[in-house]
Amino acid sequence: MINADRLAPLFTSGSIAVIGASRDVTKWGFNVLKHLIDGGFKGHIYPVNPNEDELLGRTVYRDIADIPEKPDLAVVIVPPPAVVQVIRQCVGKGIRSGIVITAGFAELGDEGARLQAEMVAEARKGGMALVGPNCNGVMSPWNRQYVQFPPFFTPPGKFAVVAQSGNVMDVLARQAMLKGLGCSACVASGNEADLHTEDYLEYMGDDPHTRVIMCYTEGFKDGRRFLRVASEVSKKKPIIMVKVGKTQAGARAAASHTASIAGSDRIFDAVCKQAGVIRAGSLDEMLDTAIAFLRQPLPRGRRLGIVTAGGGWGVLAADACAERGFDVVKLPDEVISELDKLLPAWWNRGNPVDLVAGARADNIYKAVEVVMRCPEVDAMAFLSIMPALRIRSFLSPSSEEEKQNWGSIVTEATLAAMEEFNALSQKYAKPLVVASELLFADAVQDINIAYALGQRELIIHHMPHQAARALDALASYSEYLRR
Amino acid sequence: MINADRLAPLFTSGSIAVIGASRDVTKWGFNVLKHLIDGGFKGHIYPVNPNEDELLGRTVYRDIADIPEKPDLAVVIVPPPAVVQVIRQCVGKGIRSGIVITAGFAELGDEGARLQAEMVAEARKGGMALVGPNCNGVMSPWNRQYVQFPPFFTPPGKFAVVAQSGNVMDVLARQAMLKGLGCSACVASGNEADLHTEDYLEYMGDDPHTRVIMCYTEGFKDGRRFLRVASEVSKKKPIIMVKVGKTQAGARAAASHTASIAGSDRIFDAVCKQAGVIRAGSLDEMLDTAIAFLRQPLPRGRRLGIVTAGGGWGVLAADACAERGFDVVKLPDEVISELDKLLPAWWNRGNPVDLVAGARADNIYKAVEVVMRCPEVDAMAFLSIMPALRIRSFLSPSSEEEKQNWGSIVTEATLAAMEEFNALSQKYAKPLVVASELLFADAVQDINIAYALGQRELIIHHMPHQAARALDALASYSEYLRR
Repeated sequence: MINADRLAPLFTSGSIAVIGASRDVTKWGFNVLKHLIDGGFKGHIYPVNPNEDELLGRTVYRDIADIPEKPDLAVVIVPPPAVVQVIRQCVGKGIRSGIVITAGFAELGDEGARLQAEMVAEARKGGMALVGPNCNGVMSPWNRQYVQFPPFFTPPGKFAVVAQSGNVMDVLARQAMLKGLGCSACVASGNEADLHTEDYLEYMGDDPHTRVIMCYTEGFKDGRRFLRVASEVSKKKPIIMVKVGKTQAGARAAASHTASIAGSDRIFDAVCKQAGVIRAGSLDEMLDTAIAFLRQPLPRGRRLGIVTAGGGWGVLAADACAERGFDVVKLPDEVISELDKLLPAWWNRGNPVDLVAGARADNIYKAVEVVMRCPEVDAMAFLSIMPALRIRSFLSPSSEEEKQNWGSIVTEATLAAMEEFNALSQKYAKPLVVASELLFADAVQDINIAYALGQRELIIHHMPHQAARALDALASYSEYLRR
Repeated sequence: MINADRLAPLFTSGSIAVIGASRDVTKWGFNVLKHLIDGGFKGHIYPVNPNEDELLGRTVYRDIADIPEKPDLAVVIVPPPAVVQVIRQCVGKGIRSGIVITAGFAELGDEGARLQAEMVAEARKGGMALVGPNCNGVMSPWNRQYVQFPPFFTPPGKFAVVAQSGNVMDVLARQAMLKGLGCSACVASGNEADLHTEDYLEYMGDDPHTRVIMCYTEGFKDGRRFLRVASEVSKKKPIIMVKVGKTQAGARAAASHTASIAGSDRIFDAVCKQAGVIRAGSLDEMLDTAIAFLRQPLPRGRRLGIVTAGGGWGVLAADACAERGFDVVKLPDEVISELDKLLPAWWNRGNPVDLVAGARADNIYKAVEVVMRCPEVDAMAFLSIMPALRIRSFLSPSSEEEKQNWGSIVTEATLAAMEEFNALSQKYAKPLVVASELLFADAVQDINIAYALGQRELIIHHMPHQAARALDALASYSEYLRR
């Protein structure tokens, strides 16, 4: 509760001071101000710079003291030696939240660490909560409050991002956007001198906009607190994490990046298991998995049914899922008999169910339902979606009219197929993940389809192993909740 | 030599019979004929169907015997019971090469295996070499000879694909195309009743168009021959492989897909190491790695230098490369001193070299060269390419004129940066891989950039772990060649 109050201005400010705003387009002080404006922030913005009168159409204040009201939030982009004094002035003005973009603190060694400690002491004395230093900012799309360097604006959505690397935060927010999705709140936490990853996790656990939390960390200040907080938050919503510093080289790099102590990777792994945290191997895996959590029901076990319209893809999926602890079950005789009525005589009578060439869409959905309702199946994978599309020929337009609108016909048919699968998922409360190429689409169609799917919180995984990872995450999380 | 003669018509036919050509747009017999025509095959096409006179503007022949010349190649798309008779007729006509698309043979059990054996006996008796059965066809872009189901045409290029799954072949060929690259020859080998993966590898090893071979297999008929052939071919060009059937579930699926015996994965791994074959974990990894082989020099060791414009990405790369056996070396004092002259005073003085905000393009290339020419560095990774682009502000257009042409300005600047890196690579004969997001680009720009890069045989990896995999492949192959 106290935490929520402290952190709220970071995400729901009514007014923001940008201390160190600049005219130079290559500088952070320019870009942060510009993107705060371009992002459509509704409240007052107060640039502060002793040598400017006006920047980007906004009145510039010489001094923090000159600002005509008490801003909710201060963004600090001044050289390191000036930061302590700026924090003191912010405290004097009554500002309770700050984002310190400036780098050059603990990550550079003892002298920087001393400066950092002094800054934090000053802020804590004045009851001011700090993000950073050495960070890229905070995005709060629901408040159109984009304190950030790059020029894109991830729309409001359900993903929270906490990342010690601003680069990583930017990539996750942008990739979500390119896939038709948005974010609830994104924090680049930097050196975490004052506020730590655990503070943000706690806040996002209670944030009503946040459905899934993605987290990138280079090391924890307080492992016990992480375990406690993550265990509680995981009960409410999934946390997916990438942690670096697995190797010595990575740990050294983390220390020099954000002064983090990576710690033992084995211990971290055990902590994640205990806290219900899902660990991802890469940033793209993290995002793909996060999307899967939006609409998929959680499986009650790991008994898997696979239906595939491509033989090789079925084999790849069986391998990838079995490697991740799924049991590609022998389908019961009555399921096989039911499938016999739907599929050509020469179908393989196994799991994966190989639809063989020529299977029609109606029968494909019926076959999926037959497997889905089998009590010995907890989850499903479907590979190669093309023949499930309800288009006369999924390969190419069948008429001049189709040719004119082929792009949108393909997109609509793909959305409809995914909704049909999702309806079965919901009906039987079992997840169904899909991996597929769309062999008839061009690169732009590919993007448009992914975007349209994302807007409905759906994803077609590109490759079978990616679908397997998403299934594994759903199953692991389900296991944690049932524990 | 004998092998090359037997296989040549599959890729360089002057005339092709399509036996089982059809009017039904949902059938293979229609699509294979259509795409052979649409793909621009220059030679004669002879559709064969006893019930048609004309299809897609081509004269249809009632019988193979009626074809007015001896075709170089027969594509067979008739029901399984009719295949043996068709092969007999082909042999009678003097046809020496066939692609049997038809499924329903050994993958279905004993009766199918018997039929398959009979077909092969008939073909061998007549000196006819067979691809398949149960396969998707063969693409030979240099001869504009596309015997395939899906409606896209991968351009002529340097990648050969041998895949037991037609789906997998299609995906690799299409993905290469979407990334601005092309293929020399692609074979979906199916059940491999007559010609085996090793035959294709041998052929492609000598094929002058082929620079890199991508191979997907579900199991080998003859492990010793694979070892022998692959060892020889690997000396000439890299072979990158995905093998499925690692798990019991995958092995069962492979048996039901192409009647393959997956065998022990551990033994296969050992064979790959001995034969210099690079094993990839997924299809996208295989393609990314193949692209890296086109222009990167091979490293003489695994001592790695990393330069990064994004702190988190540097950590991710250090971790991923160290996990793959690279030594992220301590840079010698003289290298650090040289970098001191190029970078701001507060740079981290370590490896990864973190460029910190504000580094200019000129200094970035100089810094890369300082690390590159260090004799204690064998290979390099560069992360987050944005500040290396020679644009005034890489974030957004600086003028109205730039705004008009922003898409092409960004693409050109990215190409130029990658060429500049490549020039350093060539100068010092050390590979430099790049992983980066382009935070200022939209999804369509992303595609256009990837395509333009591909046309120059370059790739920016999406994530640091992908760059690490590519580096690992280059190093492994180099180690094989130096053995």
